[in-house]
Amino acid sequence: MNCTHPFLDLDGDKLREECGVFGVINASDASAATALGLHALQHRGQEAAGITSFDGTEFYSRRGLGHVAENFSSSEAIGELPGFMAAGHVRYSTTGGAGLRNVQPLYADLASGGFAVAHNGNISNAQSLRSDLVRRGAIFQSTSDTEVIIHLVATSRYPTMIDRLVDALRLVEGAYSLIVMTPEGMIACRDPLGIRPLVMGRMGDAIAFASETVAFDVVGAEFTREVEPGELIRVTFDGEIESLHPFGKHQSRPCIFEHVYFSRPDSFFAGRSVYEARKAIGEQLAIESPVDADLVVPVPDSGVPAAIGFAQQSGVPFELGIIRSHYVGRTFIQPSDGARHSGVKRKHNANRGLVAGKRIVLIDDSIVRGTTSLKIVEMMREAGASEVHFRVASPPTAHSCFYGVDTPERAKLLAARMDVEPMRDFIKADSLAFVSIDGLYRAVGAEPRKKACPQFCDACFTGEYPTSLTDHSTVESQAAQLTFADHKAA
Amino acid sequence: MNCTHPFLDLDGDKLREECGVFGVINASDASAATALGLHALQHRGQEAAGITSFDGTEFYSRRGLGHVAENFSSSEAIGELPGFMAAGHVRYSTTGGAGLRNVQPLYADLASGGFAVAHNGNISNAQSLRSDLVRRGAIFQSTSDTEVIIHLVATSRYPTMIDRLVDALRLVEGAYSLIVMTPEGMIACRDPLGIRPLVMGRMGDAIAFASETVAFDVVGAEFTREVEPGELIRVTFDGEIESLHPFGKHQSRPCIFEHVYFSRPDSFFAGRSVYEARKAIGEQLAIESPVDADLVVPVPDSGVPAAIGFAQQSGVPFELGIIRSHYVGRTFIQPSDGARHSGVKRKHNANRGLVAGKRIVLIDDSIVRGTTSLKIVEMMREAGASEVHFRVASPPTAHSCFYGVDTPERAKLLAARMDVEPMRDFIKADSLAFVSIDGLYRAVGAEPRKKACPQFCDACFTGEYPTSLTDHSTVESQAAQLTFADHKAA
Amino acid sequence: MNCTHPFLDLDGDKLREECGVFGVINASDASAATALGLHALQHRGQEAAGITSFDGTEFYSRRGLGHVAENFSSSEAIGELPGFMAAGHVRYSTTGGAGLRNVQPLYADLASGGFAVAHNGNISNAQSLRSDLVRRGAIFQSTSDTEVIIHLVATSRYPTMIDRLVDALRLVEGAYSLIVMTPEGMIACRDPLGIRPLVMGRMGDAIAFASETVAFDVVGAEFTREVEPGELIRVTFDGEIESLHPFGKHQSRPCIFEHVYFSRPDSFFAGRSVYEARKAIGEQLAIESPVDADLVVPVPDSGVPAAIGFAQQSGVPFELGIIRSHYVGRTFIQPSDGARHSGVKRKHNANRGLVAGKRIVLIDDSIVRGTTSLKIVEMMREAGASEVHFRVASPPTAHSCFYGVDTPERAKLLAARMDVEPMRDFIKADSLAFVSIDGLYRAVGAEPRKKACPQFCDACFTGEYPTSLTDHSTVESQAAQLTFADHKAA
Amino acid sequence: MNCTHPFLDLDGDKLREECGVFGVINASDASAATALGLHALQHRGQEAAGITSFDGTEFYSRRGLGHVAENFSSSEAIGELPGFMAAGHVRYSTTGGAGLRNVQPLYADLASGGFAVAHNGNISNAQSLRSDLVRRGAIFQSTSDTEVIIHLVATSRYPTMIDRLVDALRLVEGAYSLIVMTPEGMIACRDPLGIRPLVMGRMGDAIAFASETVAFDVVGAEFTREVEPGELIRVTFDGEIESLHPFGKHQSRPCIFEHVYFSRPDSFFAGRSVYEARKAIGEQLAIESPVDADLVVPVPDSGVPAAIGFAQQSGVPFELGIIRSHYVGRTFIQPSDGARHSGVKRKHNANRGLVAGKRIVLIDDSIVRGTTSLKIVEMMREAGASEVHFRVASPPTAHSCFYGVDTPERAKLLAARMDVEPMRDFIKADSLAFVSIDGLYRAVGAEPRKKACPQFCDACFTGEYPTSLTDHSTVESQAAQLTFADHKAA
Repeated sequence: MNCTHPFLDLDGDKLREECGVFGVINASDASAATALGLHALQHRGQEAAGITSFDGTEFYSRRGLGHVAENFSSSEAIGELPGFMAAGHVRYSTTGGAGLRNVQPLYADLASGGFAVAHNGNISNAQSLRSDLVRRGAIFQSTSDTEVIIHLVATSRYPTMIDRLVDALRLVEGAYSLIVMTPEGMIACRDPLGIRPLVMGRMGDAIAFASETVAFDVVGAEFTREVEPGELIRVTFDGEIESLHPFGKHQSRPCIFEHVYFSRPDSFFAGRSVYEARKAIGEQLAIESPVDADLVVPVPDSGVPAAIGFAQQSGVPFELGIIRSHYVGRTFIQPSDGARHSGVKRKHNANRGLVAGKRIVLIDDSIVRGTTSLKIVEMMREAGASEVHFRVASPPTAHSCFYGVDTPERAKLLAARMDVEPMRDFIKADSLAFVSIDGLYRAVGAEPRKKACPQFCDACFTGEYPTSLTDHSTVESQAAQLTFADHKAA
Repeated sequence: MNCTHPFLDLDGDKLREECGVFGVINASDASAATALGLHALQHRGQEAAGITSFDGTEFYSRRGLGHVAENFSSSEAIGELPGFMAAGHVRYSTTGGAGLRNVQPLYADLASGGFAVAHNGNISNAQSLRSDLVRRGAIFQSTSDTEVIIHLVATSRYPTMIDRLVDALRLVEGAYSLIVMTPEGMIACRDPLGIRPLVMGRMGDAIAFASETVAFDVVGAEFTREVEPGELIRVTFDGEIESLHPFGKHQSRPCIFEHVYFSRPDSFFAGRSVYEARKAIGEQLAIESPVDADLVVPVPDSGVPAAIGFAQQSGVPFELGIIRSHYVGRTFIQPSDGARHSGVKRKHNANRGLVAGKRIVLIDDSIVRGTTSLKIVEMMREAGASEVHFRVASPPTAHSCFYGVDTPERAKLLAARMDVEPMRDFIKADSLAFVSIDGLYRAVGAEPRKKACPQFCDACFTGEYPTSLTDHSTVESQAAQLTFADHKAA
Repeated sequence: MNCTHPFLDLDGDKLREECGVFGVINASDASAATALGLHALQHRGQEAAGITSFDGTEFYSRRGLGHVAENFSSSEAIGELPGFMAAGHVRYSTTGGAGLRNVQPLYADLASGGFAVAHNGNISNAQSLRSDLVRRGAIFQSTSDTEVIIHLVATSRYPTMIDRLVDALRLVEGAYSLIVMTPEGMIACRDPLGIRPLVMGRMGDAIAFASETVAFDVVGAEFTREVEPGELIRVTFDGEIESLHPFGKHQSRPCIFEHVYFSRPDSFFAGRSVYEARKAIGEQLAIESPVDADLVVPVPDSGVPAAIGFAQQSGVPFELGIIRSHYVGRTFIQPSDGARHSGVKRKHNANRGLVAGKRIVLIDDSIVRGTTSLKIVEMMREAGASEVHFRVASPPTAHSCFYGVDTPERAKLLAARMDVEPMRDFIKADSLAFVSIDGLYRAVGAEPRKKACPQFCDACFTGEYPTSLTDHSTVESQAAQLTFADHKAA
Repeated sequence: MNCTHPFLDLDGDKLREECGVFGVINASDASAATALGLHALQHRGQEAAGITSFDGTEFYSRRGLGHVAENFSSSEAIGELPGFMAAGHVRYSTTGGAGLRNVQPLYADLASGGFAVAHNGNISNAQSLRSDLVRRGAIFQSTSDTEVIIHLVATSRYPTMIDRLVDALRLVEGAYSLIVMTPEGMIACRDPLGIRPLVMGRMGDAIAFASETVAFDVVGAEFTREVEPGELIRVTFDGEIESLHPFGKHQSRPCIFEHVYFSRPDSFFAGRSVYEARKAIGEQLAIESPVDADLVVPVPDSGVPAAIGFAQQSGVPFELGIIRSHYVGRTFIQPSDGARHSGVKRKHNANRGLVAGKRIVLIDDSIVRGTTSLKIVEMMREAGASEVHFRVASPPTAHSCFYGVDTPERAKLLAARMDVEPMRDFIKADSLAFVSIDGLYRAVGAEPRKKACPQFCDACFTGEYPTSLTDHSTVESQAAQLTFADHKAA
């Protein structure tokens, strides 16, 4: 399930992550809790949402384009999803009716009964598995990589559901955090490297699973623990919980970008408060790349925690030099008179009274294409800033992600095209600095990065992918060669 | 035009202000600029929007429920509004088709030609004027107080449009900032006390008017000056600008709540940066009511500037102890298991990792009913805060507004029902303090408050209304007597 | 209220009549009965519908574009229209939101209380009355001629409502059948010549008014009598019924086209069954213009009764030589291969098996532009008919209507451009004949037409308009001169 | 594909037939022609429509609930369906988004490429085939019996598409007329008994297939011949046409109800004009069951041709004693005053002026539940008819259909519950007669019915099903036993 989230970013100038999943079993209002849980994960996928529930006899599904609140806040909607087990999914999706086919949870009637799955991640050999299955007569309903898992389960020869699922996952390569529902209960599992997050919680007698802990805060559940890399947790309707590790032991490599940008600051990830991690990155930045300035200004909202950290470490006051509108959305027709950069200004407006005549340090979480960074620097100067320094709370993003994050094609990544000094020139800042990869590891509370086997997936910064990439690697490497050769040579 | 804005506040626990108006004349894309300008004023009225344009021959109107972006971002919408003069309005409105009748600009075909008006404010003798007009055979299209102005203009015996408008406004009492369009040009005017804001800007050859300066930033116009209290500014299609003061000189009394909450922090109001004013209120609060604490935590987003001011003044670090969701909206069905206060948590979630074991100072802009304040204090305690102190960046809000702000009925205002100590008890805070009225005046850069004739309208704090209230006063005073007698006695 | 009905005719090749009105007082479910009554009158106006009800205190209104069933069949819709008095209206309307302003009943709050009116007809001096009213300060909400009546009532100086209404109607010229609701009861009235129909019925204690008797059949009411030309009938909530004739006695001149086409065949009009009248016209045609043929084929559905009459009189068998689709509606994209006349064929397809090799008499109710007649003749020939004779159950339609029927501009009327023989040539028939004007009078059961003062309004055939035409006459006569001079000369 | 058509019948008191299919290959505007062709077949399925096209590379699909005109009349809709081959389907469907899954054509990506199929009929062993397929790992997208065919094709081991399709159809039992599209061209086929209709036509170089000939009239194609029972016709993009008969020779048994009711009267079916067949049934009825009466009155519209036949044979005049509204649709709220049978009257109103005091023969095509027949007889009496005789243009409908017609459960069929005399009593007619089964065969132009092997499928009248009914037979016979035992015994 390769999906995306723009975090209200309209220019596509952020990495677009992932999906969010939420499931709960043995709850009296399973679908209402799931709706609320998904709503708390809305930032992980804003284009479509779906919930499937089970009442002991039947499975019920409802899907819709748009936000969770638009589709699952009414009592009618929840009333269509009865039962004590439910799971849901938020995702990025193309618009249009056909798009609904790909909205999860995916559901199929297997010979063993109903089978529903919500998936966060990306299966990197989905295309080759799919070709095999079609050759054997399988008919796919969607273009989703997740459907491959269902067909593998459907055609597995093992007798029990858990064996069929393990059999299927053995063939699968890439990143996945799954919530599966069958007539026997719920199964949550995470790929052997634990690339995508998945946490477990408890709400009275009910057991819940979610992409982030913030979902537990909102539904009123208590965080129990992370689902471990390579672990399958099976929960029955009797409340039995069983943990399996069918794939043996691996060193885990969770996605470090969850700390940088994807997770909500009020979530805990890999044992650490995301807010604290971001502040620590800001502090690290202030130590590595200090600057003589009057104001520390975050690019709202994702740059705020790092900016607070930078300000506290440096002693330069933290101020809202950019005001963010709550009403972003569609693009407007541009009037020909006057309005320059009004697209950016609709979202982010300079706080003129504050900025004029001041030396500014802008703090942002990352630079992807660089186009928005350029506009923001220009906007600061137009508002009278005397100097504009740019500090980035992650290393240069130079590589695509193949694990469920919708990165622009590599040719569009500014850091894939040029080094830091040309980047500074491109965004027209007075200075530009990124946190170092080692500084990032330090800030998130890890040991120094282990070259041989890093503790996180940091492929977007380093290009070191932790799995093979059957579908993509050849294409990607060739494209990279053709496209970037002379850029890098220059 | 009595309207409202919830600033994404779903419980009605904020004062709901006003409307926003924007107009531009002699612009090549008048309606596109107006759409963008209204979008920048969206926080002033989120329920409905309308634009009327004029192309030299015909007037064109389009109205819709919902946000500006939903109604005016398409080229089709803008294409239906041709011409070089346009004005628009954002407002609060009841839902349903009938509600569209009240969406402004209001338009009428008079004997002199088309007449369109967008109004921010409230006419406090509208009901008695309306009764007179109906008795003389006038037929009203809407329930809007603004329509009274149109009928007064239509039935005035003066020969010129400007005289007819002045004749009409002489009969009108209350607060109004108007943008009027006729086949001769645009007229902007503000009531004699200048209660509601109205500013003037320039965009090349075009002249623009708006409720706040932020609209000029977004459309790319330059702020020229405020429209003065009691001033009418007439702009013709030849570019002539004429200023009239037909009502003589008055001491102005602009609404001080614009500084507290209504205006965007990146606007300038009454000559001062709203962001700076809010920070200064926070500093004043820290001086007046200091507290020994570990963290200064704003109630997002309106409490942020005052919290920064409080933190800088007090030396207590500013931290995001509450994380605000970007995806608020409808209410969800509450699951019976677990979720307590999930309504609040959907919007505002405690940053647990930060707050646990800490002494917190919460900063909010105002307390209206107090119900949200209570929930936020409780949420902080549940997240482990050891002490929760509450500081409010305005004096107690104890009186209704009759000038275009939708206050709850007085019986619902916490400060109308009790003093500060019972309020503290009600919201369960360890301490509670409000900025003083004099401190507020100081913070917004004014002289000490002149008892006899205050420099601002501060009636919501003091009950001193600057105009007579023909329609409302009797009703209100009686209701107040009946409802509050024993509360205050207790 | 000039409106229209296409009777599923998409090419505009029918006269488009009128509107339909229905009202009921002292009924326990007034709005439900009104919805049903309007539904039975749907053929009189298919583009928009509205109902206003009164519950003793408040008036309630609901309007919508489209059919009655789409807008008024749900219990929600009816639930919004409580009370024991209601009136409704069906009409033709332009599409688009703005069009709703013109959907009737029109409603206004007058000094005397609420005033609602539903109007079938057209006020032929509405423009001049409107100009006067605007000059005196009246503000119009709609472009409807009906609103003139409301303003005249609102500004009348008479003390009682009935006097104010009579005062208003004295100034009005043209055709009108009105149902008025005030807080005192219902008033039904018809213009002095009774051009448009209006009938009265009884349903238990309730009194109903409708454009046609078929509405009484469907709601279960009994037909009492026609409202007389120039009569006002006032019904109070006590059940008192009062009849007034304030305009003196006139010779009535009801629209003869109601018999030809507008009314449903199961209605009674001017004392006669419409079905019987149409059959009699067919018989008259067979007598006046017999033809040697194998089959009598109606152009469905309006030509059917006359075809049955023609067949019975002539002895030539009646057959369905044209099959009409029930699923007409939008125009389709025409494929370039093959499909010729597929627009007509979507609605009317030749019954090939029947028609091939036969001599056909086609019977239609009227010829307006002639374009559809041509296509149908050609379709018959393509299906193998050896001869195609055309007989028309009305005289040539050569003049526009100014009494509430939407005729094409006169230049588009085939009979305004040419005589019968060129018309035959135009539609490519082997022969063509129209019933004579005297034959038409005979068929509808009238005395021979009185030249000096005809018993019906037959202006569309004769050009003899029974009233003055203040707004239109000058324009029309000039246009006629310019446009037709050489046609007629040729 | 078991579907249905109510022919605007809202009470379900008609047999609900089938679906309609249309396909065309080698046409320059294939999807525009398909839309028009489907529109002409709208009476065969009014709840949903779909079209799939192929442009030489890609397949394109569009589906929608509602009529063809609502979904496929715009140039946008047709523009989304490019290419020179297209096929479409109209059907009955449950409402709601999920229903779209079942809207045909069904499409799948097979290993051999795209595969689309539109199906009219019903596979009577679909459930058992589906169970087998699921057991082998197939995942179904829909609940449609048609999908079974696709999975059988997908899992067939034969090398060529035509062999795989024949292999699949060998396993299938029941009725089917199919239009299949693959990247190699179009295949049309009909089950070995030819139960459901399918005809072939030519439009220039293009070859078209349709359920009825009327579709060719409307698109401008020429009827070539019927697809033979058991025939597969393959058409390539080079224009080659190949006919296959892989299932050997069978005696054909087309559905005789196509003549009675399903087909449009302007279609040809089994070599005969449907209109002529219906007239002949009416003549046969007049011979078998004459009646002394004043008027022959059809129940519109389906009873009209038989009524004309009855009238011509008997000499009793044909008259429109019931007027049918063109605006049926939703059910209205019934007012408590007055309105009795207003549900029926909204659709069918007595022509009072004609009927009063007369002896009436009503002619209808069939009696299903009898509830509508009762209401119509009562309506005639209320309108003053002195005698009401009922004649039915088909034998008693006493058995369910399992070949794609949605019959009510057998217990609801009036003729399954009682003999003719009790039926007469039930509908309160003065006399009741049905055409005999032999008379029906005679009227449609067939030899006398061959007992051993009838020339038509007439199972709904005789209970003699021409195929085995794997899925249904056990259930049905048991239900019949339980439900009808005492009825029939009584």
